[in-house]
Amino acid sequence: MTQVTLETISNLAKKRGFVFQSSEIYGGIRSAYDYGPLGVELLRNVKEQWWRSLVQQRDDVVGLDSAIIQARAVWRASGHEEVFTDPMVECRNCNTRHRLDKLEDPEQCPSCGKRGTFTEPRQFNLMFKTHMGPVEDEDNLVYLRPETAQGIFINFENVRRSNRMKLPFGIAQIGKSFRNEITPGQFVFRTREFEQMEMEFFCRPEEADEWFNYWVEHRFSWYTDLGIDPDKLRLRPHDADELSHYSAGTSDIEFLFPWGWDELEGIANRTDYDLKQHTEHSGEDLRYFDQETNERFFPYVIEPAAGATRTTFAFLIDAYTEEEVNEETRVVLRLDPRLAPYKAAVLPLSKKPELIEPAEKIATELRRKWMIEVDTTQSIGRRYRRQDEIGTPYCVTVDFDTLEDHAVTVRDRDSMAQERVSTDRLLEYLSGLLDR
Amino acid sequence: MTQVTLETISNLAKKRGFVFQSSEIYGGIRSAYDYGPLGVELLRNVKEQWWRSLVQQRDDVVGLDSAIIQARAVWRASGHEEVFTDPMVECRNCNTRHRLDKLEDPEQCPSCGKRGTFTEPRQFNLMFKTHMGPVEDEDNLVYLRPETAQGIFINFENVRRSNRMKLPFGIAQIGKSFRNEITPGQFVFRTREFEQMEMEFFCRPEEADEWFNYWVEHRFSWYTDLGIDPDKLRLRPHDADELSHYSAGTSDIEFLFPWGWDELEGIANRTDYDLKQHTEHSGEDLRYFDQETNERFFPYVIEPAAGATRTTFAFLIDAYTEEEVNEETRVVLRLDPRLAPYKAAVLPLSKKPELIEPAEKIATELRRKWMIEVDTTQSIGRRYRRQDEIGTPYCVTVDFDTLEDHAVTVRDRDSMAQERVSTDRLLEYLSGLLDR
Repeated sequence: MTQVTLETISNLAKKRGFVFQSSEIYGGIRSAYDYGPLGVELLRNVKEQWWRSLVQQRDDVVGLDSAIIQARAVWRASGHEEVFTDPMVECRNCNTRHRLDKLEDPEQCPSCGKRGTFTEPRQFNLMFKTHMGPVEDEDNLVYLRPETAQGIFINFENVRRSNRMKLPFGIAQIGKSFRNEITPGQFVFRTREFEQMEMEFFCRPEEADEWFNYWVEHRFSWYTDLGIDPDKLRLRPHDADELSHYSAGTSDIEFLFPWGWDELEGIANRTDYDLKQHTEHSGEDLRYFDQETNERFFPYVIEPAAGATRTTFAFLIDAYTEEEVNEETRVVLRLDPRLAPYKAAVLPLSKKPELIEPAEKIATELRRKWMIEVDTTQSIGRRYRRQDEIGTPYCVTVDFDTLEDHAVTVRDRDSMAQERVSTDRLLEYLSGLLDR
Repeated sequence: MTQVTLETISNLAKKRGFVFQSSEIYGGIRSAYDYGPLGVELLRNVKEQWWRSLVQQRDDVVGLDSAIIQARAVWRASGHEEVFTDPMVECRNCNTRHRLDKLEDPEQCPSCGKRGTFTEPRQFNLMFKTHMGPVEDEDNLVYLRPETAQGIFINFENVRRSNRMKLPFGIAQIGKSFRNEITPGQFVFRTREFEQMEMEFFCRPEEADEWFNYWVEHRFSWYTDLGIDPDKLRLRPHDADELSHYSAGTSDIEFLFPWGWDELEGIANRTDYDLKQHTEHSGEDLRYFDQETNERFFPYVIEPAAGATRTTFAFLIDAYTEEEVNEETRVVLRLDPRLAPYKAAVLPLSKKPELIEPAEKIATELRRKWMIEVDTTQSIGRRYRRQDEIGTPYCVTVDFDTLEDHAVTVRDRDSMAQERVSTDRLLEYLSGLLDR
């Protein structure tokens, strides 16, 4: 197992076009990161696998895509306007602001090192504010959502009715959320703008514990099935005093990041808190009517809530491997092929047109199904190494023999084993390896 | 050709779970819409087809996913802080606000009907403002991006270098943008929060006209290839006085919406405006160095910029068909199978377990590849009609003969023709029809 540092992985991410600092040419902005050509594909694949596992392959979960800007009343009802806060202190000496509960020493300023310089803590609300329409007053104040979940709760009845859903059922959503963190940090791990993958699973209250356990196990398996080393994953139940205001029980799935164990995903039993709150505040009855038992009641909700961006980051870290090959260090991203940005690279052995042309033809054929790169620069060994470093599972080399035998060499990223495959059946051959 | 009204299509959209009013239980918010279980799949498929056409299938375009909140300096440089405005008037009688250039009669208030009650017009900036970090002052003011394009320009050099791109090449991005429209309207067509699909194609200045024509044609074909009636599409070059501040020429692809011709997408020649502006404002040299000619210059940019949400809306409108079948009106969404939310519905003829069980088994098998619905309610005729109405291209009926002959009936949405297919080769049979 390679222990990768935050510096190594962020350098690779930048150099190879996975992640760039946002607004970098203007000195950067401490809110988010931009995903480059490789990062956007990795992120897309992570989200696609989540959707496939939680929506496509199930008959009891449907999708949703709700707005980022919702009515202010939503956040009053949900409790976010009142309690979605972090305790903040300001250093009287150097004027920096800090999140009190994350300080190693609550008396000492981590910026200037002085002790006893902090102001009294105040509760800082993490929701970004803006105004809708041309007048900037209280009436037009709206928030950027700090979680996608509320968009699901307020559409509970719309979804149930239009798609005739029966308990138990879930509603899944992927989308951006915003939290005005006092101290963002650790590369893409904690950012003010981030992407979530959340699912709210509605069930009968008496079945909530069972579904909670089901989803904890289901979500844990999702990570290991996609290749995360189980030794770098653990489950951590929240203590009673760290539970969110809506939760009767939460377990975090944690990953061993370079700085230690930290949260990838939380699975929470949100009880009937949200549906009750929205019923009370909106006046719309969000209870569920069970036609078989003639009962009307508020379902309980089990919520697996993952961060798409930090999950992508974890896959990147976990995949990073250094190994000695012929007395050189080979860097390989051992990404699951389903997550790899490019599924194959087509490499003509030389830049001569008689090789470039069949290489392009092969790439065009493969692009019907997958993201494919063509690389024509430098030696074949250098090109293999470059593809290893971005996690491309297969390299397809077009050489001068190809002109005679109409076959290519397919090299496996992990074993480096090579096999000669007829170009006629290359698509089928790769489908056998890649389709899951 | 069925002429569908805005009311008919929005009713269908709501009833079947394509689109809901955002924050509906709180009286709605005039900024955006929420995409329900069917809408989110349709929207996902539209975006996927765009990405496939512009990124996956090409060797000269790569993807990007940049942040919504960018440094304020980005919008100073791009000109948006100064000129991204609409002229607004307020009615002194009823206090409503209107966009002057969209009024049918610039003297008469469309809300109260009074004449001569408008204030002097003022320029209203359409960018949403917010503050990053705990202090709400000018220093921390940031905007929600009004277009995804600037995130591409500021990453031009990052992308070029990390992916060793050579001119001509493009960078494509899909993501949310925000414009604080004075008068949003026409259902999902003009909303304050919306999703864009933009690509910036960088080329040598002398090749810009050629690439402009190429992309106009390429993008026009994308719509017709995905089934939009060419009679409902037209190309409209902008007059000189309606060009954006950065454009040397723009052509809109317009669609015949229920209220008339309106914009789906604009293809613009943005010249070297943006790269020059960012070079000047950031101090980073964003010129391109051509190794063959030893020249350093600002590339020109051709930008096909489409709205993902309004394009999805156009596909929905165009697909809507009413026809007479057996003296009843059949409503069919003739969506291209690539766009249809569900690729097939599995319908057991009765609710008896001996039919439900094989139906579930078939659905599980098909779900490995596609979004599949199982529907067990009401008569088979009613269920066919429901699937027609949501655009499902194939219905797979499991009947009592299935238990004997291990075959199912596959019904085609458009022709209503039925074919008996062995369950063994059902996946292959549907792949032949659906895979493109």
